[in-house]
Amino acid sequence: MKVKGFTAAAVQAGIRYHNRLDLGLIYSQHPAHTVGMFTTNTVKAAPVLLGMERLREQGLAQAIVVNSGNANACTGAEGMAAARAVGAMVAQALGIEENLVQVASTGVIGEQLRLEPFTAAMPALVAGLREEGFADLAQAIMTTDIVPKTAAAQISVDGTEVQLFAVAKGSGMIMPNMATMLCFVVTDAEISPAALHQAVQTGVAQSFNCITVDGDTSTNDTVLCMANGAAGNPLLSAERPQELAQFTEALHRILRDLAVQIVRDGEGVTKLVKVQVSAAASTEEADAAARTIANSPLVKTAFFGEDANWGRIIAALGRSGATFQPDQVSIAFDQAVLVEKGQGLGKEAEDRAAEVLRQKEFSLKVSLGCGTAEAQVLTCDFSCDYVKINANYRS
Amino acid sequence: MKVKGFTAAAVQAGIRYHNRLDLGLIYSQHPAHTVGMFTTNTVKAAPVLLGMERLREQGLAQAIVVNSGNANACTGAEGMAAARAVGAMVAQALGIEENLVQVASTGVIGEQLRLEPFTAAMPALVAGLREEGFADLAQAIMTTDIVPKTAAAQISVDGTEVQLFAVAKGSGMIMPNMATMLCFVVTDAEISPAALHQAVQTGVAQSFNCITVDGDTSTNDTVLCMANGAAGNPLLSAERPQELAQFTEALHRILRDLAVQIVRDGEGVTKLVKVQVSAAASTEEADAAARTIANSPLVKTAFFGEDANWGRIIAALGRSGATFQPDQVSIAFDQAVLVEKGQGLGKEAEDRAAEVLRQKEFSLKVSLGCGTAEAQVLTCDFSCDYVKINANYRS
Repeated sequence: MKVKGFTAAAVQAGIRYHNRLDLGLIYSQHPAHTVGMFTTNTVKAAPVLLGMERLREQGLAQAIVVNSGNANACTGAEGMAAARAVGAMVAQALGIEENLVQVASTGVIGEQLRLEPFTAAMPALVAGLREEGFADLAQAIMTTDIVPKTAAAQISVDGTEVQLFAVAKGSGMIMPNMATMLCFVVTDAEISPAALHQAVQTGVAQSFNCITVDGDTSTNDTVLCMANGAAGNPLLSAERPQELAQFTEALHRILRDLAVQIVRDGEGVTKLVKVQVSAAASTEEADAAARTIANSPLVKTAFFGEDANWGRIIAALGRSGATFQPDQVSIAFDQAVLVEKGQGLGKEAEDRAAEVLRQKEFSLKVSLGCGTAEAQVLTCDFSCDYVKINANYRS
Repeated sequence: MKVKGFTAAAVQAGIRYHNRLDLGLIYSQHPAHTVGMFTTNTVKAAPVLLGMERLREQGLAQAIVVNSGNANACTGAEGMAAARAVGAMVAQALGIEENLVQVASTGVIGEQLRLEPFTAAMPALVAGLREEGFADLAQAIMTTDIVPKTAAAQISVDGTEVQLFAVAKGSGMIMPNMATMLCFVVTDAEISPAALHQAVQTGVAQSFNCITVDGDTSTNDTVLCMANGAAGNPLLSAERPQELAQFTEALHRILRDLAVQIVRDGEGVTKLVKVQVSAAASTEEADAAARTIANSPLVKTAFFGEDANWGRIIAALGRSGATFQPDQVSIAFDQAVLVEKGQGLGKEAEDRAAEVLRQKEFSLKVSLGCGTAEAQVLTCDFSCDYVKINANYRS
């Protein structure tokens, strides 16, 4: 799929390993309104700090350069200088302002970025820019990911075709550290910065912020969305609520799609589980309950064991901080109700639930019976392979 | 070790399995000042609710009856009635007030307690009471524990010998549910209720509340401490600060000892790790930082892999909510410093740290460099066996 005015490329720069794509570039022929959402971790990698600084100033970008193999995190002033240097190389090679270059990294934490591979690879990288380059880019940002992750959408605004395309990586752990989630969205939509910001923010809230593999937040998590207006559609803004809603829905759909792809590709994952909490006192409490269940090692190992172990679920719920009366709780896997009014429904109900757990994807529905708020979190199981992958990566 | 005025017994009641001790009794010849600390989980098992109610009324107990095999949790009104019925049987058999019986349970969640095994076993249980019965009791409360856990201390108060003895279970998961921690302490000390409460509360804070295996809190966690005064020592109270301090120290020592035994016996554990956070802005923040690190699956799998993976540690720190400047953090395993001022010290430092990680027990020391508060949490690694045990228990 082509998105007007955008090109991409990737090369084998040998940043950590040889013979694999590890350096990518996205380029827009014009500066694009760009919204960035960055990790909430107190420890932020150098490229994250740089990206935040640049977007705060003007909300524009024209290029994203991204490498795997080294996260450039916990690298101090030297790391910041390296991130700026990479951005400068790209700016110079493309003939654009430095401030318009966003830099992203994923890989090892705590090692300084060597600049030589970037310098050496820059001519080929820029020369390689082409409309069809996004597939290579999706490869270049993979670390322990098994499959590249892309999603696309197309809408029509008053007869003009508008394209959205996105690549993402995660949440296999990056070697040898933690799950980094990167996502880059490009669209040729003409859209107001305020509307774009709103669409991205709400989209991330209901996609990447609703997934968990192991509860760890990376130092490098980044979502960047560039809109360059090359489609020439009538401006999407609050003035055109219907078309804006259409764009927002398309953007949200691809973000949710990528979020699901990320969990499905989590390390050692054999089950994809949607934890839905309803009838909570507030959205915050529903969210806390869903997250506590979704991150409980005991619940996740039970998923792996295909065991409808509701005692673990109710115990996780009980430490989540959510308000509820234990005798008002009900629990179901898909349509198989296991617990009503806080008590188990017996062997037959467990057998029906166990059948649901043998599937690769299912929902865990928990009703707290004390309000109307709800939340959901997508999670996965905790398998022997998860431990093996994460224990043995560097050994 | 004999504690004056206390006897104990255990029998094979066949509550869930046959041919294993599963029902225990502790008896004091006189009502004893008793302090109880119970699970903070919103979902509290029936015996926990009953025990809280009884101790709130008068702070006295004369017997503790405890079973494994069934947690009597999530069992509603029927479960409460069953807990009361078990207490009533014991009261009648011993000829004491019902209110003086504490009931504790550990095992499966969500199944009703059958009373027949208790009725049938009661005569033999009471007949078996003897001073040396605590070893059997320690066996009877085990679930997936590999070893029974006991600790003892003795002090002299103005020439009078005072004994303390305790049994505990956990934190192997109880079948098929979660880690329950039970601990019963008996002492023949003559001690004021206020002083006993203070000593137990501070002791639990620095022992059982400072350990974690998987971050899950059981519905049944209970610590009971009975002091019957049979030693005949001069009353321990705020009036005798020196002797009281001696008692408190002895009590704390055995609680800490049992807490360590519990983590060491955690399921699939191969490493025991003391996570020490210092130079934090507040004790709460130090504690949050230590717990976040101690519960991170990525950090725990790295311990299992003997990988000095400080990127994972610093990333967990960064999502803990603790205040710090990334460039002020230092990290060491025992004496091997890995990170200073937020940056890694290189290959040699990692090699020295990796040597420490090959030991079975070590400390992980994290200094935040922004205050004077500190906290520590004892944790363990996350092994393939942990997943296997918890995934396969019921299959």
